[in-house]
Amino acid sequence: MKMRYFDHMATTPLPEEVVSAMMPYLREEFGNPLSIYDLGARARQAVEEARAKVAGLINARPQAVIFTSSGAEANNMALKGIALAKQGQGKHIIVSRAEHHSVLNAARSLEKTGFAVTYLPIDKHGLVEPDTLRKAIIPETTLVSIILASPEVGSIEPVKELARIVKEKGNASFHTDAVAAVGNIPVDVADLGVDLLSLSAHQFYGPKGAGALYVREGIRIVPLIYGGIQEGGRRAGTENVPAIVGMGRAAEIAKEGLSETAGKLKAMRDRLISAALKVEKCRLTGHPDRRLPGHASFCVEFIEGEAMLLLLVSKGIYAASGSACSSKALKASPVLLSMGIPAGLAQGSIVFSLGRENAMEDIDYLISEFPPIIKRLREISPYAQTWGGVEESGQCIPQK
Amino acid sequence: MKMRYFDHMATTPLPEEVVSAMMPYLREEFGNPLSIYDLGARARQAVEEARAKVAGLINARPQAVIFTSSGAEANNMALKGIALAKQGQGKHIIVSRAEHHSVLNAARSLEKTGFAVTYLPIDKHGLVEPDTLRKAIIPETTLVSIILASPEVGSIEPVKELARIVKEKGNASFHTDAVAAVGNIPVDVADLGVDLLSLSAHQFYGPKGAGALYVREGIRIVPLIYGGIQEGGRRAGTENVPAIVGMGRAAEIAKEGLSETAGKLKAMRDRLISAALKVEKCRLTGHPDRRLPGHASFCVEFIEGEAMLLLLVSKGIYAASGSACSSKALKASPVLLSMGIPAGLAQGSIVFSLGRENAMEDIDYLISEFPPIIKRLREISPYAQTWGGVEESGQCIPQK
Repeated sequence: MKMRYFDHMATTPLPEEVVSAMMPYLREEFGNPLSIYDLGARARQAVEEARAKVAGLINARPQAVIFTSSGAEANNMALKGIALAKQGQGKHIIVSRAEHHSVLNAARSLEKTGFAVTYLPIDKHGLVEPDTLRKAIIPETTLVSIILASPEVGSIEPVKELARIVKEKGNASFHTDAVAAVGNIPVDVADLGVDLLSLSAHQFYGPKGAGALYVREGIRIVPLIYGGIQEGGRRAGTENVPAIVGMGRAAEIAKEGLSETAGKLKAMRDRLISAALKVEKCRLTGHPDRRLPGHASFCVEFIEGEAMLLLLVSKGIYAASGSACSSKALKASPVLLSMGIPAGLAQGSIVFSLGRENAMEDIDYLISEFPPIIKRLREISPYAQTWGGVEESGQCIPQK
Repeated sequence: MKMRYFDHMATTPLPEEVVSAMMPYLREEFGNPLSIYDLGARARQAVEEARAKVAGLINARPQAVIFTSSGAEANNMALKGIALAKQGQGKHIIVSRAEHHSVLNAARSLEKTGFAVTYLPIDKHGLVEPDTLRKAIIPETTLVSIILASPEVGSIEPVKELARIVKEKGNASFHTDAVAAVGNIPVDVADLGVDLLSLSAHQFYGPKGAGALYVREGIRIVPLIYGGIQEGGRRAGTENVPAIVGMGRAAEIAKEGLSETAGKLKAMRDRLISAALKVEKCRLTGHPDRRLPGHASFCVEFIEGEAMLLLLVSKGIYAASGSACSSKALKASPVLLSMGIPAGLAQGSIVFSLGRENAMEDIDYLISEFPPIIKRLREISPYAQTWGGVEESGQCIPQK
């Protein structure tokens, strides 16, 4: 059966041109970038060329890009690195309820060591209200971290406006987790006005094992991994040269095709959303317009997300039920709950994240297969008979 | 010109069978190991099979192996993870002067946050004296970290004896940085009696971007990277599946060929050492016998290490001058200085680390090329005329 992959928020396949770019560094060009001879120098050059390409994707200067092993590492490095570097100025940080586990759990770890953390509420679309942020900033606030786009509900936060508020109100640094956004929408660190930004290669058709943290020049950060002089002494460990090279090539490809891909994804997404909303008791999660171009997420009443996933897979359709990083935990998503979606409904979460190898024909196939699966599951659902009615809108219903 | 690579402490090439093992995970098997469908489950299975293979190499149970992105990350995780987890019991840790930067600098970062650190002196061979360790342990000591084998001077520390002393004297955990040792000598966590052990794939013919920390079951550790539920919640971030699979295959190969390879390396090493010691004013660093099988390190009087390296490269010979992680810093190695070697002499450090693709013919070639290079450099050395004489032994001379 043909595989139709709609789980690009979990990970993306590698295009052959990215694999080809990596191959020399898995074979003959195996040098350590710190070795002073030619073999090392070529590895060093490959890393620096990749850095320039990654920087180009986010309109940063190359020296502001620090390679990490993942988006999670970049997020941890940002939160702990700034909180510790600035603890003389204050011990308060702000994150939103829309954040990824790696930001939320890094914030919680800081709480355990004496930092105060404000968790900003989000609205029914998953967005942070600018006024809420404004009120949360106190003189002791040293860091604000707001996700750029949610992998779970696709909503794009007003980061530019939020970053401006932070700058107006004091000296806090602004970090954004752009892991789900980079490669899908234009991300420009100068335009956004952010101080730090996390990204992950395998979210934009690069390899697993490579991420990056943008740190605006002049901002000091305490390292997470100490050791050698790699990455200007800010992140030790022998560089993962093949993955970094792959990340660079993927960044180049993403930049070239960004607007064309976004247009294509949006057309497919809109077709999928309008078809899915015709399914009885299937509601969109996240913002209807202000969302990632390839992101279509729903809550389906009376149905377990996992059951939908497994029946979809039997038809060759690959999707997700919330964040991959917690998909085995079988708990309702904290982001959905923070949006006011009742726990029972949040269990029926399903996320289709489209990618550039998808075609409209794949969407048509999905649209033909999805409703019968819902119907079948609803027939056997123990909840379908007992669940109370909810409003008939295109939106998941907030808990009263 | 044929390349003769003698810098296996910096990094190792990937055998084709390791690349082959990785390839499916760079292509069709691109799933996220946390995705619940078949594509994810196969990635998960590949990670778990690799974990069993890595565990097999060090005689550990698979669940005690946590994958990291590098040896440096594993070392940081061990030091900070234990120091923080046990800070209620005490805030004193012990490391040796033979440690890698990633241990030393992680220890220094702990010092800055209120921990006391004892840096154990080492003898002229780079070894920790058991009695020195015994005296350094106090009731507040929660962690002792001693390197298993030095990448710079090849000496193998008496870790089994040191770990026993720690267990006799209290409740401190014992960590060893086995990055330079694993794959070169038998490493058995049960026999050594260690609680934590760091390793790095690219040091034993595995890929860059994969390392591991062994944490004996029952030992709690504070994570370095928070986020998703990967690695039992102890290390977040989407698994670098291709690199982890490569690490597993490399571990399998290393285990199979360990004693045969060690015998071959030792014969080459001994031939190299005895030839090099005939070169005027070339002295062995590290222990003469208790050293890694493929490791031959020297200090050459009046000569800069880097100058030797560059002339060697012109003959197709790749070596190092100390640790790759600091090779651009152009400072005398702290390990050599701690062994009592004068700073001027330490500048003349050269390390040949042999690997299994080397043949005796390569050593013969090296032996034929090395002395003329020394002679040539010495003729142009500004130091050769003014440097004071030192004792004529096969050993680098400690500073008086």
